[in-house]
This record gives sequence, structure tokens and C-alpha cells, in this order.
Amino acid sequence: MKILLLNPNTSDVLTDQLAEVARKYAAAGTEIVPATGTFGVPYIANRAEAVIGANAALEILAQQHRNVDGAILAAFGDPGLGAARELFDIPIVGLAEAGMLTACMVGKKFAIVTFSTALGAWYRECVEWNQLQDRCCAIRMLDQSFKSIGSVRDEKEALLAELANRAVEEDGADVIVLAGAPLSGLADRIRDRVPVPMIDCCAAAIKQIEGLVTMQLKAPEVGTFRRPGAKDTRGLNDLLAARIEHRD
Amino acid sequence: MKILLLNPNTSDVLTDQLAEVARKYAAAGTEIVPATGTFGVPYIANRAEAVIGANAALEILAQQHRNVDGAILAAFGDPGLGAARELFDIPIVGLAEAGMLTACMVGKKFAIVTFSTALGAWYRECVEWNQLQDRCCAIRMLDQSFKSIGSVRDEKEALLAELANRAVEEDGADVIVLAGAPLSGLADRIRDRVPVPMIDCCAAAIKQIEGLVTMQLKAPEVGTFRRPGAKDTRGLNDLLAARIEHRD
Amino acid sequence: MKILLLNPNTSDVLTDQLAEVARKYAAAGTEIVPATGTFGVPYIANRAEAVIGANAALEILAQQHRNVDGAILAAFGDPGLGAARELFDIPIVGLAEAGMLTACMVGKKFAIVTFSTALGAWYRECVEWNQLQDRCCAIRMLDQSFKSIGSVRDEKEALLAELANRAVEEDGADVIVLAGAPLSGLADRIRDRVPVPMIDCCAAAIKQIEGLVTMQLKAPEVGTFRRPGAKDTRGLNDLLAARIEHRD
Amino acid sequence: MKILLLNPNTSDVLTDQLAEVARKYAAAGTEIVPATGTFGVPYIANRAEAVIGANAALEILAQQHRNVDGAILAAFGDPGLGAARELFDIPIVGLAEAGMLTACMVGKKFAIVTFSTALGAWYRECVEWNQLQDRCCAIRMLDQSFKSIGSVRDEKEALLAELANRAVEEDGADVIVLAGAPLSGLADRIRDRVPVPMIDCCAAAIKQIEGLVTMQLKAPEVGTFRRPGAKDTRGLNDLLAARIEHRD
Amino acid sequence: MKILLLNPNTSDVLTDQLAEVARKYAAAGTEIVPATGTFGVPYIANRAEAVIGANAALEILAQQHRNVDGAILAAFGDPGLGAARELFDIPIVGLAEAGMLTACMVGKKFAIVTFSTALGAWYRECVEWNQLQDRCCAIRMLDQSFKSIGSVRDEKEALLAELANRAVEEDGADVIVLAGAPLSGLADRIRDRVPVPMIDCCAAAIKQIEGLVTMQLKAPEVGTFRRPGAKDTRGLNDLLAARIEHRD
Amino acid sequence: MKILLLNPNTSDVLTDQLAEVARKYAAAGTEIVPATGTFGVPYIANRAEAVIGANAALEILAQQHRNVDGAILAAFGDPGLGAARELFDIPIVGLAEAGMLTACMVGKKFAIVTFSTALGAWYRECVEWNQLQDRCCAIRMLDQSFKSIGSVRDEKEALLAELANRAVEEDGADVIVLAGAPLSGLADRIRDRVPVPMIDCCAAAIKQIEGLVTMQLKAPEVGTFRRPGAKDTRGLNDLLAARIEHRD
Repeated sequence: MKILLLNPNTSDVLTDQLAEVARKYAAAGTEIVPATGTFGVPYIANRAEAVIGANAALEILAQQHRNVDGAILAAFGDPGLGAARELFDIPIVGLAEAGMLTACMVGKKFAIVTFSTALGAWYRECVEWNQLQDRCCAIRMLDQSFKSIGSVRDEKEALLAELANRAVEEDGADVIVLAGAPLSGLADRIRDRVPVPMIDCCAAAIKQIEGLVTMQLKAPEVGTFRRPGAKDTRGLNDLLAARIEHRD
Repeated sequence: MKILLLNPNTSDVLTDQLAEVARKYAAAGTEIVPATGTFGVPYIANRAEAVIGANAALEILAQQHRNVDGAILAAFGDPGLGAARELFDIPIVGLAEAGMLTACMVGKKFAIVTFSTALGAWYRECVEWNQLQDRCCAIRMLDQSFKSIGSVRDEKEALLAELANRAVEEDGADVIVLAGAPLSGLADRIRDRVPVPMIDCCAAAIKQIEGLVTMQLKAPEVGTFRRPGAKDTRGLNDLLAARIEHRD
Repeated sequence: MKILLLNPNTSDVLTDQLAEVARKYAAAGTEIVPATGTFGVPYIANRAEAVIGANAALEILAQQHRNVDGAILAAFGDPGLGAARELFDIPIVGLAEAGMLTACMVGKKFAIVTFSTALGAWYRECVEWNQLQDRCCAIRMLDQSFKSIGSVRDEKEALLAELANRAVEEDGADVIVLAGAPLSGLADRIRDRVPVPMIDCCAAAIKQIEGLVTMQLKAPEVGTFRRPGAKDTRGLNDLLAARIEHRD
Repeated sequence: MKILLLNPNTSDVLTDQLAEVARKYAAAGTEIVPATGTFGVPYIANRAEAVIGANAALEILAQQHRNVDGAILAAFGDPGLGAARELFDIPIVGLAEAGMLTACMVGKKFAIVTFSTALGAWYRECVEWNQLQDRCCAIRMLDQSFKSIGSVRDEKEALLAELANRAVEEDGADVIVLAGAPLSGLADRIRDRVPVPMIDCCAAAIKQIEGLVTMQLKAPEVGTFRRPGAKDTRGLNDLLAARIEHRD
Repeated sequence: MKILLLNPNTSDVLTDQLAEVARKYAAAGTEIVPATGTFGVPYIANRAEAVIGANAALEILAQQHRNVDGAILAAFGDPGLGAARELFDIPIVGLAEAGMLTACMVGKKFAIVTFSTALGAWYRECVEWNQLQDRCCAIRMLDQSFKSIGSVRDEKEALLAELANRAVEEDGADVIVLAGAPLSGLADRIRDRVPVPMIDCCAAAIKQIEGLVTMQLKAPEVGTFRRPGAKDTRGLNDLLAARIEHRD
Repeated sequence: MKILLLNPNTSDVLTDQLAEVARKYAAAGTEIVPATGTFGVPYIANRAEAVIGANAALEILAQQHRNVDGAILAAFGDPGLGAARELFDIPIVGLAEAGMLTACMVGKKFAIVTFSTALGAWYRECVEWNQLQDRCCAIRMLDQSFKSIGSVRDEKEALLAELANRAVEEDGADVIVLAGAPLSGLADRIRDRVPVPMIDCCAAAIKQIEGLVTMQLKAPEVGTFRRPGAKDTRGLNDLLAARIEHRD
């Protein structure tokens, strides 16, 4: 099967990093098709940037959805996930959603651990959108600047391990969700320093999308994610307009 | 005071209709500054269209925020409301938010009544974003096509009154929130046919934004709606980019 | 319009203080009609005193409701608010309700900050009555005696500013609700020392009641706040008895 | 032990009826001390009447609390229960509280069945005050006038049995709480016509208060129901004033 | 009346201790019939041991249910309580359930205090099964080894009193539920050292089961705890098999 | 990898049916190791039977856990899932858990559809144990007898399709979870008759357990599912006793 790995950020370095993790955990026969946002910000960290990233994600899906069997929306916070599911017929999972639902199978309470306080407000809304508040015991964030988005995983490795431990000790986390595309790949490295399982969201996402594609579920004809009726548009990207107008 | 009445839809007819209602309820001395979305769809009805409308709203705010004292995001569902609050320093209220919070002062349970089933899934997410699920007893929607977005209020007047009555009788609504910009102005007309108070969201929004502007609250320096730090952007509308990059 | 500013406490000094704030924020053309409780305690701080204050509030409303267009129940905790809405046809808002709902438009989480631990249990029930638990992140109270209810605002100014800051830092408050009639007027003075917006509940209440009166909502004929049928009474204040017996 | 059976309504017929049920289920050695409200309405049915009844209850408790070992607040809805617990040191249970908590031991979901729609809004607030919403599947009310409060139990027997059955079939009730002092004694009579257990709230209350008295729990020195500090009062019933001012 | 005091643990010393407390609080005329688990572990502390203890409890009930009027499932956590209610017609209460519901009548928030961290996860599930999360402010556990299950109550008396005080001060507990059969009898001893009421679960359970038996509720014919239809079994204890197969 | 497909029922026909579905959806290289309960009932339908089935599941796991890489607890309701996770180090998923979490990625609200009303009470507790109440809009059950557990899937095919449609139309289900091991394999057959995706829980479970095994998460050393300390046992199955006593 072919899986679109859609990075709605504009950073190619993140796309590469995510693709590496996805390929590591993918089943034999799964082909990863990476794509990077063409406009927006290098790393989505809040609601305003998520609005822009959601738009970028829709445009990439409009271009690619017929070429793949499923897609991963590869930014924690899952910008535009509901919108994407409405517009397109293929299965789509978000990094946050996949990570949190997977965590639910290894613990009662998960904590989200990430590298910047800027992300907290948006991540919290993401937990609520998934209605998983009762299972999320904390969102723990580093409160420090970092050199680059591509190397934050390495630069803060020790501090992130320590933060995960505090979530276990002080918040009662049974499992840690390492959040944010830039942290993909970290779980393995700090495994011996944290006493509970840690979820790599990109690993979780590739397994979840493979599962959904394998099950060959039908696209919904009614309900919250059914495709909306055709509608006129003005001023949009051509392929996205075509999809909304039912010309695609 | 000057209030931006920001219609993120592309329909001028809706903007005119909303401005008329806003002016009717505005205090002496309040000037309404209408604006209409320059790209997107004539009427936002789902998550995909809300992503696009949210973007349109941010662009208009980037252009206008220094010319006004406050803004109304004039589409029920409040596309991009959190994002707008993050990026800009003026008070901003959404049509849905203002309508629902006002309803909370006249009843324990409100029902949302609107003109199309297409709107249900998105409206439900809006109720949840406001964490008002415990106070919303139902979302009632007409299940019929209509001639035009500018005249749906007139065409369906009798059916909407009937729907409001069913929400009262069957769902236990103490108050009705008439939802969607196209229904602004309807509450007065069907007042005698519905036994509970009805909220016109545009009327509620103009009173709420006047209140916030009058109180002269400071913009938050920390917390969920603080302004994010400066960040590089690529490929965005100039004014919006300037705001994100802290050049504005 | 004429607005009854109903202080269910027996302290005239509080009534004066509240009236001053209400007049400061009222629109041109709004007349404030102050009233003070004739029996009970100088300052309602718990459920037992609220039962008494609620009774005092109903008696004042029985006397005044035909002379005014709306009423503010001017004690945080809103003693008897539901009862008042049932019995009388005019719009009525409570200080707590108005402050908290207004806070919902400037932050996701509000903290209530007040001057005495005696108030905590009752305020918590008030948050629950409004079903706003998910949006209230903390109730912070000073744990100290104070000289007089009329001057606690001045005496504890520095400590209250500090408490507000702790609610921001430790509880994650996006906005502060300064609670209790005696703190009305404080928000402006400590504005520069607190990094988030602060709500003066009396200011919020005057804007909310002006909005409700402007919208000219009908009184409910059914639902939770409809007027109860006529009933015999024994031993009650004459005007209140007349209202319950439908002689008024 | 001596148990005050405090009927905050003004109807002696209800007091007699309740006392009969209480005596039937009381342990040997339990003495029932009945008391009836001296002002208010014959039967409390809404929030306004509950404010008045709560006041009446506090006055009776001020008079009787030193003569008894515990008290039953004998009106479903439990007007003034929190206030009573704050002010007095003896254990006190409410009819609604006792009935609902007892129901929790015989089913997962209880339905409240009562004789008048006028009671619904107030009863719902009572369920919420006890935070038992997740266990209450319905409040079912007859929608008919009745001859007298003392005979409604007999007059509507067949209809109430039918209503209980509908709560079982349509709402999934595992157990029925027969609500309202006037229905005390009904459970036994319709036992054979309803397929689930039914709780007589007065029976439940006498067993619960006997249990609390037997356990000899200490009165709380801190927390939500600790006794408030002494405070000046004006215009109150002498004994109630004495209790608030710590002269009693 | 005869009450089965069913200790699903294998420790006779606990059974004796529980029976002593039950007899102390029982009404005149109540006979306590103790029984101890014949297989499993000396003290149930987690979900795995609860599965085993639940089985042991069902076997004892299959043997005894016709000889008694009611039963107490005498392990905090109430292993198999729902299963027991389904299979048998007599009233049954659990130690945890009885303790927590009783606590609800003396405070708004209760804290569970117990002697070992091993118990936390299972106790939390018990609170959730009872849907009392909103009323449970904390589960506080000692983090130390102890000499024997029969003497932990004495050995840790001072530490448990201190822990109860921390629950009051730091978690806002209005009432303490002393959890775990081994702590039965402790409440009285530390009464003077803790400023809020404390619930002895065995005392609460004997009063609750006496109340249920006195009320003579019918067994449910429908709903969550109705008896399941007859079913074939393989490899089970004879009496339990007979009950499931409707031969008993 | 080797996956234990643990059917805690005593019906071999169910084990065969489940194994067929599991093999159909398993990745190349996944070996399914089926096992059937040696005591209990042919089909677990309620809490009492779940207690017994949970015990049977623990015994099978005690025997097999070192021979496999992961396990599926193959009865909807997941009897003993938490207990199993505590005792054993391999990843384990339940049929219900896997089905519901997978459903969360294709709709906002799922409905559970099953073949017998006997299952409702127990399934509801399972939804609550997973804290997914906000996402489960209904549990729909056929109310009819059936010939055999092995053929109920075929016998009731048309009625189950109809029931799924009612869940969509009347409960607003976005996705259907076909619940109960006997329905495994049905989703494909009725796909064209139901307008929303349907989850085959056995298919979901095999994909979820494959994902967990692939991620090679560590077993928790602390938290809710850590392995309990060694403890003495009496009267248990040898292998289970060995595991609890830390001899295995």
C-alpha cells in the first residue's frame, strides 16, 4: 500500500526525519510518500499557525489523494484532520490521534511530553477534540529556547527524559506520548531512562493507517465525516476548488 | 467605538443583512465596519470550509485590526476564533459564542436551531470548543434545500418556528439560539409563535463586543491567547505574514 | 433604561461602591437604581447566609420589579438567582454569572480570586450551578482577617494582585474573575501588575443586563424559568406573597 | 435516639404522613420528632418556594437542634440542606439525597418519578447538587392537576405506577426513586406492578440518619460544612440570629 | 436479620476484625454470619487478585445466599459486586460503595486514605465504577512496607492520621474514607487527630445493608442487575454452576 | 510474530471463527495461536460470567505468555483485561477496546450493535472502563432468541443490518462497532446495506496487537499496569499461582 506522509509544516528536515521513522516501523510492502507544506511556518505551534497549516494540508491532499491508499497528517495537533476526513475518501490519521489512542492500550492515563511551552494551548484543544481529557493526566513542556527544529530532539534529549520522569512521578502517567513531529525517533533512545512505555507518534500513526487501509472500510455516506455536497468557491487553489465543487 | 463586522463568507448579501441587525442593536456611538471574505465559499457549512474561512478571517483582521476597537467574527461556528485571539490584541467575539453565552443568562438549557443538516457536525464541535455541552440540549436542523442563502430566513420562516417549538417540547429547551448568519433578524418575526426567548446571535454579538470594549481589558501577556513569538513564514498574504513575523 | 442594582447584603457601603462602578461602565441613558438588603448579614459568605440573602433579594424584587427594566443581583454567588428568574418577568443577571460568562470570551480558563477562605465552598457551588467547572481552573482566596468589608479592597490590594499572579502561574488561568462585591473597582488599579485580563464583575453585570434589556427577549412561558402557577402562602412579606399568589 | 423530622412545607397533613412512614421503618428505640414549617407554602415545588422553605428549615433547626440527635430535611429537593449542615452540628440528611444514594446500591441508573411537572426544574438542580447526573437516567412527572396534596398519592396511584413502568422501559431505569414527600408510602402499594425496586425516600432517610447517628461521626472543623465564624445579623428570627452570631 | 459478612480474602484474621466492627455498629437483632475466602490471596490489592477474589465471593454466595437476609462484600474495591447482584436475589453492599455513599452525606468531597500504594489503581477503578469521580478529591496511600495485614492498622496508626490530615489540607477533603478491610476500627482511634469526620467502611456497610433489608425492596426483574437466564456451564464449583444453570 | 488469540468462552466454534478472521487480516509473518476457555460458559454475556471468564483468561495466559509476542483477549467486554495487563509483560488488547479505539479514527460517535439484550449492561460497563462514553452514542441490541452462538451471525444477518441502520438514523452513529465474538466476519457481508463504516473487532484487534508488538514498547515498571509484587496464594491453578508468587 502507498501512504502519504503529509507534513503540513514547511521544514523538509522534519519530513525526512518523519519518513525515516515511518519506514522503520512500516510493514513490508508499505510505501511511504512524503510531502511538505508549500506555505506557512517551519513548525506549527499554535492555533493561528494550525489554521494556515490545515489549509496547506488540504491543498496537498487535493493533489495526492488519488495516488495513495491512506494518509498521515504528520503534525501533532492534527491541523485540519476533521476537514480532511470530510473532503477525501481515503483513511487519514493524525499524529496526535494515533499516538493518544495507541497509548490508551498500554495505560489508563497518558501524559503528553513536548519541547516547548508554545505548544500547550493548541495541544490541549487537540486532546479535547478527541474527547480524551479523562485519559490525559498532563501536558508537560520544556520552557527553553532551542537551536533548530531539526535538532531539538538531540539537544534536549536529557531534559525530555527528565520531563517524562516527572510526568510519571508527579502526574501519575502510565505511558508517555512524545509529542511533536520533531521528537519522532526519541522514544527508543531514552527508553532505559523512563520506567513506563513511551509512544513515538509517527510509529503509532504508520501502524494505525496500515490497519485502517487493511480493513478496507467504506467511506461514510452519512454522519460527521460524509463528503459535503458540491459548492461554488472563489479564489482557491485549483485542485482544492475542484474537490469542493465536485469536479474531482 | 468602531467594530469590525467580519463576515468570513464570500456573500455580500449576508454582510449587509448582518450589518443591518448589528446597527439596530448597537449603542449610540458604535460604528459598524463591515467586511466580507475575499476567497472561500458563499456560506461556510462544515469543517473543510471553516478551515478556509478561518484563513480568510485572519487576512481581513491583519488588514483591519488597527482601525477598529473590536471585532465580531460573523459566522456561527466561529471559524478561526482562537487563532484570531492569539494573533491580534483587540477583543474579538464569535457569533456562536456570543449567542450561546447570552442564552446561558436566560435559561439552563439552550437548543441551537438552524436551516440545514449540513451544519450539524461543525456546530457540535463549536459547542464542545466552548465546553457548553452540558447546557446545549439539542441541535435542530431543517432537512430541506432552499433557494438562496440570502432569502432562506424568509422562505423557511414557518418551518423554523415549528422546529423551535419542537426543541422546546421534545428537547426541553429553555431558550433558542437561532444559528447561522442567514437567520439573523428572524427572532423578532417569530417571537409570538415560540413560548421561550430566542437569541439573535448578531444582536448578542454586538452587545457582547460593546461590553468588552467598554471594559478596556488588557491583552493577555501569558496564557492560552497570548500573542505567539515572532516566526518566519513562507508564501502567506503580506499583512498576515507581517503580523506573524512581528513586523506589524 | 432603569436597572435595579440589588445588593442582598445589609451594608450600604457596598451598595454605594457597586453603584459607583456600575455608573462608570453604564451606557448613556442607563439609570442605576440601588437597593440594599433590609435583613440578614453585612456580607454573605456561605450557604446559610445565602439562604437568608436570597429571601431578602426576593422581597426587594417584589417591591421594585415593575419600576425597572432589569436587575443585577449584586452578590457574587448569586443568591436566589434561579428563584428570582422564576418569579419575575424582567431580565436579571448575577454578579458571578456575568463575570464568569464574560471571562469565557477572553480566555479558556478563568480563576476566581477573592479575599476570604470563608467564601470558597459557596463559590464552588455557584460555578457548578452555572456548569462552568471545565472553564474554572481555580478558586484562590486570601487566608487573613481584614478590617472592614468596605475597605478590604484597599487593605489587601497588594496581596490580591499577588494571588492573581499565582493563579496565572500555578493554575494556568488565562483571565481572572475578581469575585465579591467588595472587590468591585479593584481590577483597574492592579491592571499593570497582572499579566492577564481581569474581570470586574459589576462592570460585566451592567454590560450584560444592558444587553439583555436591549434585546427585548420575551419572558419564558415554559421551561425552567417560567413563572410558577398561583399558590397560597402563609406568613410571608405582603408583596412577595402577592407575587406568589398571582395577585401581582 | 431522637430524630427531628423537619417538614419545611406548611402542611400538617404531610408531616403526619411522613411521620407514619418514618415510624414504620425506624429501629426500635428511635423516636421521631415531627415539625412543620410555620411560614411559606403548603408544598414546595420550585426554586422560589425552596428559598422560602430553606429559611423556614433553618429557623426550626435553630429551635430544635439541641433536643435531637439528628434531623431529616423532609422535602424532596432538600431545600437549604447545605446551609443546615454548615450551621448545625448534628447529622442531617435530605429526602432526595437519602433516596438517591440508597438507589445507587440497588441499580446503576435510577429514575425520579413524581406527581407534577412543576417540580422538574428544581429536582434537576437537586440531582446536580449531589453530582449524581451520571446515575439519574430520567425525571418523569405526571402532567395533571390533582385534588389535594394530602391525597395525591391515592388519587394518582395507577398513573404513577404506569409512569414508573415507562421509566423502566423507555429510560432504562434499574430502580425508581418515588420523589416528593406526598408520595411517601406509595412504594409498597404499587410494588407488584413495577418490575424494579422502588425507593420510598422517607424510609431511606430514616435508615440513613439512624446510620449516621450510630456512627457518631465528629462535626467537621474544616471543609465545606464547617461552622462559619460568628457574624452580626440584622432583622432575623432570634434563635437563628443567636446561632449565626455564636450566642448559641 | 442475618447478614453474611463475606471476606473474599483468605485471611481469617481480617474476617475476625471485620466481624468485631460489624457487631459493634449492628442494630439489636442483627446477626453477623462471617465467611472467609477459601482460595486466592491473603489480601486483595489489585485487579488480578480482584478477579480471583470475585470468583471466591460468588462461590461463597452460592453456598450461603439462602441462609441470610443480606450480604456485605467485605473488601474495599468490592470485587465482583455487580456479578453478585446479578446472580443472587438478596441485597448486597460493598465496603467501598457503602463507605463512599455514606461519605457523600457528610461532605462534598471525600478522600480515600489507605495503607499501601499497591491499592491505588484498583481503588481508582472502583470510584469510577460507582461514578463518584466528581466527589472523590484524592486517593492517598502510604508508601511503606508493613509487618502483617492483621496489624497494619496499629503499626501505621500515626502515619495514617498524618496522611488523612494531608488529604484535608492539600486535597480539600471534607471527609475521609478509611479504605481497606485492614483499617476497619481505626477511625475511632484517630478521631481527635483529624479535623473532619472519618468513615469506617465496615460500620457504614452494616448500617447500609440493615437499611436495605429493612426496606424489603423487591429483586429487579429487568434492568442491569436482573438475574440472567439459565445457561450451561462447564468445570465450575457445583453450587455456583447450579445457580447459573437455574437449578438453584 | 506469534499472537495468542485467547477466547475465554468454552466454545471451540467461536475460536475457529475468530481465528479465521484474524488470519484474514493478519500481516504476512503473523502466526495466530488460538486457545479456548476450559471452564465457564459457552458465551459470556454478563458480569457474573465475565468474572469466571476473566479467571479462565488468566489461567491460559499463565500457560502461554512465554510462547507468544502478544495476545488478543477475544471476548467483547474484555473480561479481565486490566488484570491480564498487570500480571503479564506482553502486550494484550481486548476485542472491545480495539474495536472502539479503531472506530474513533473513522467517526466522532460510534454505536455498538450486538445480537442480544443480555449483553447491554456488561458492554456499558466496558465503554465506561475505557472512558469512551462521550464517543459512544448508543448500544443497540436485538431482542430475540437465536439458535446457536456459532450461527447467530448468519441467522440474524438481515436484522443486524437493520439495527445498524437505525443506530445511524436515530442515534447519529458515524461508525458501527459490531460487538461480540460471534459477529466477527459480519461487517464485510452487510457492507453495502449500511451507509457508514463498520468495525469488525477481531480485525481491529489483530491490527492493533501487531502494531503494539512492532513498536516494542517496554513493560511498565510503575503505574497502573506494573506487575504487582510477589504474594502468597492458596488453592489456585499452579501456573497462575507461580506467576502471582513470582516463581514464573
